[in-house]
Amino acid sequence: MDRRRFLHSATGALAAVAAPALLVPRRTAPAAHRADGARVNGQLAAFDRVGRTAGGINRVAYSDGDLAGRAFTLDLYRAAGLAPRVDAAGNIVARLEGRDAKAFPIVIGSHVDSVPDGGNYDGALGSFAAIEVARTLRERGERLRHPLEVVVWANEEGGTIGSQAAVGHLAPAMLERTARSGVTIREGIARIGGDASRLASIARASGSIAGYLELHIEQGARLERAGTNIGVVQGIVGLRWTTVTITGLANHAGATEMDRRQDALLAAARFTVAVNEIARGEPGAQVATVGRMVPVPNTTNVIAGQVTCTVDLRDLDPVKLERLQARVESAGLEIGRATGTTFTYEPAASSEPALADAKLMTVVDEAARGLSLGTRVMPSGAGHDAQELARIGPMAMIFVPSVGGISHSPREYTTPQDCARGCDVLLRAVLAADRALP
Amino acid sequence: MDRRRFLHSATGALAAVAAPALLVPRRTAPAAHRADGARVNGQLAAFDRVGRTAGGINRVAYSDGDLAGRAFTLDLYRAAGLAPRVDAAGNIVARLEGRDAKAFPIVIGSHVDSVPDGGNYDGALGSFAAIEVARTLRERGERLRHPLEVVVWANEEGGTIGSQAAVGHLAPAMLERTARSGVTIREGIARIGGDASRLASIARASGSIAGYLELHIEQGARLERAGTNIGVVQGIVGLRWTTVTITGLANHAGATEMDRRQDALLAAARFTVAVNEIARGEPGAQVATVGRMVPVPNTTNVIAGQVTCTVDLRDLDPVKLERLQARVESAGLEIGRATGTTFTYEPAASSEPALADAKLMTVVDEAARGLSLGTRVMPSGAGHDAQELARIGPMAMIFVPSVGGISHSPREYTTPQDCARGCDVLLRAVLAADRALP
Repeated sequence: MDRRRFLHSATGALAAVAAPALLVPRRTAPAAHRADGARVNGQLAAFDRVGRTAGGINRVAYSDGDLAGRAFTLDLYRAAGLAPRVDAAGNIVARLEGRDAKAFPIVIGSHVDSVPDGGNYDGALGSFAAIEVARTLRERGERLRHPLEVVVWANEEGGTIGSQAAVGHLAPAMLERTARSGVTIREGIARIGGDASRLASIARASGSIAGYLELHIEQGARLERAGTNIGVVQGIVGLRWTTVTITGLANHAGATEMDRRQDALLAAARFTVAVNEIARGEPGAQVATVGRMVPVPNTTNVIAGQVTCTVDLRDLDPVKLERLQARVESAGLEIGRATGTTFTYEPAASSEPALADAKLMTVVDEAARGLSLGTRVMPSGAGHDAQELARIGPMAMIFVPSVGGISHSPREYTTPQDCARGCDVLLRAVLAADRALP
Repeated sequence: MDRRRFLHSATGALAAVAAPALLVPRRTAPAAHRADGARVNGQLAAFDRVGRTAGGINRVAYSDGDLAGRAFTLDLYRAAGLAPRVDAAGNIVARLEGRDAKAFPIVIGSHVDSVPDGGNYDGALGSFAAIEVARTLRERGERLRHPLEVVVWANEEGGTIGSQAAVGHLAPAMLERTARSGVTIREGIARIGGDASRLASIARASGSIAGYLELHIEQGARLERAGTNIGVVQGIVGLRWTTVTITGLANHAGATEMDRRQDALLAAARFTVAVNEIARGEPGAQVATVGRMVPVPNTTNVIAGQVTCTVDLRDLDPVKLERLQARVESAGLEIGRATGTTFTYEPAASSEPALADAKLMTVVDEAARGLSLGTRVMPSGAGHDAQELARIGPMAMIFVPSVGGISHSPREYTTPQDCARGCDVLLRAVLAADRALP
């Protein structure tokens, strides 16, 4: 270990990438380049019981399930010999000091909150792997040049709240929004040990991190279909979330003639079909989804007088995003005219596409290839905390395959082998980034 | 009064229809032929505050709002000098004895429960008018030949539960169904003072009533559009309620490519559009509605894995009902194949068309014309307790206009003038039915 460390500081980071082959037999990776994947898989198996309900994993941010998931995670930090603290946004943070007192930290992490009725791997794998990487380094007494920060971000699924706060980008109005768990985000932050009145104290300035690396399940089927082990993320798509309110006229389902109706649920149905057709109507990887629909009064024998639904629209190209968003909104207005209903739109959330850093993408790619794993450069259709960290420093993400491309579902699954590979790639990427980053 | 009563018994019911003109000046209706419409309108105004929430009237059967509405109604019975009792199904019943000890009763009434977020007139008008008619007769000392029973049926909106029980037609399995208020029907019946274990004791045999008359708001716009005062109902449409479960695959709304989705909400949307097109696809008065839709997990960034929705299909012709129901179900199966989802159907409720009695229709028509009101023979697209009473005796219904055709909505409204007219027609129809019925 000492020799390698010496070599790094003596020859610089770029030389170090090729160095291991000179020091160890070619076909055996050095011990320091493997994390204990079995341990992470054991942790994931135990975590599968936390927040588990009949419908799936329910660790929705700020809920009792989230509190249980965070307690489990804090124990992992402690078992790893890390000293976790909870910051003002509720992020769980631990730090290993580096050799260079002037270097900015390399940050690794993910999240442990879930969507309602979600799966066990989204966020948890990357969080536990980050803890494991720090544990591996600490247990081997291997100190990086940069400080290493291991962060489990709070409330990722509700809009990357914790990571937005950490980069000083959380709009104050967001604090008063009601989270899925029923409390406001301000109240939720207090519930998990943060303090929303002190968010300014944790805001990191642009340039204040050396880089950010996050391991995550793909949540799509591109890797599986290509038979590839590791995805090297080129960027995270931008998104537009819109809350749509459709107002018709509640009326009797039996006594109201078909041509006298102002049926808000029929209008919402036509709109849902239109949103799907708009997304499929041109080439590209854009996606659009109506995932939430709440009719009022929502009963068998009453024509719905109002429907609230949502549109989730994503693409890597901000120009296309705007064009599709405009098309969706005008489709609704047209359906409103045809059905005697009115459509109103409220932006619920939006994020701009975030591109990964080319140097860190190379670091990830080489880390995977060094383990004889196949790689594939790909966009992330899902949002991640990494998109927020990209605001203040270079970012890259490592994807491992999702079986069947399924996530945000109780059927979400990544094989133990792929989980372990992801941990190994994260560890090697951290070591290489430590050499590559200023 | 004594003279008229004598006349009826001396010359028979049919002669009595024309008799008043011989006894009083032609242009003034006799006092006995008017109910106190102002009093009923006052009661409706006071009732508008019972179960009122921001969303509308909520006196959903067996809920606290229903309990409050029933308490209000019991007070009206008492103020009318009637002695109400609650039967085993929770129906509120009072009886005025008739002159003929052998005659079966004439039954009048309606209901006071509401749909969620409903209006103040559906059921309440007919209930209060029935109480008022009995009060008028009682206060004037005018005793009918038949006994007169005034019944406020329990849980009409949840499937004519009280009236089904009263005619011995409530399937025992229904008692274990969960009502909209969250309790089972069995529990709900207990909550309103009934006893589901004793339902057999209240079942009336076929032929055990002389007739049934019910005043109700139209809940459609036919009367308003025709400028007609009174609807003479020719029959109540049959209905089929179906619970549809659509199963797809919950997945990430950002990471799942458009051509890899099994989107249950998209399938439900296409199905909703198809149901509408099927109902509109042929001539006739048939109606079909998807009024309830519950996606799971119902959140912005998850493709819905499952949707439960309902179909409400109605027509006067049972053959057409079956044909349209088959068409709806096969449309769902086809959409399932196209979207990678599966459709399953469960019958939730059904009723056969119920025809009104021709003699009682004439009684209603003549009662209205005797007050110089215009009439129109029409079907009822809504279900009513009258359809259950039709199983055991002759039935007729009196409709008054719904402003804008709106009902099952907070905007449901019938003018005080039309409410008063309905009360008068009910009173005259009861008097004429007393003469016309055996």
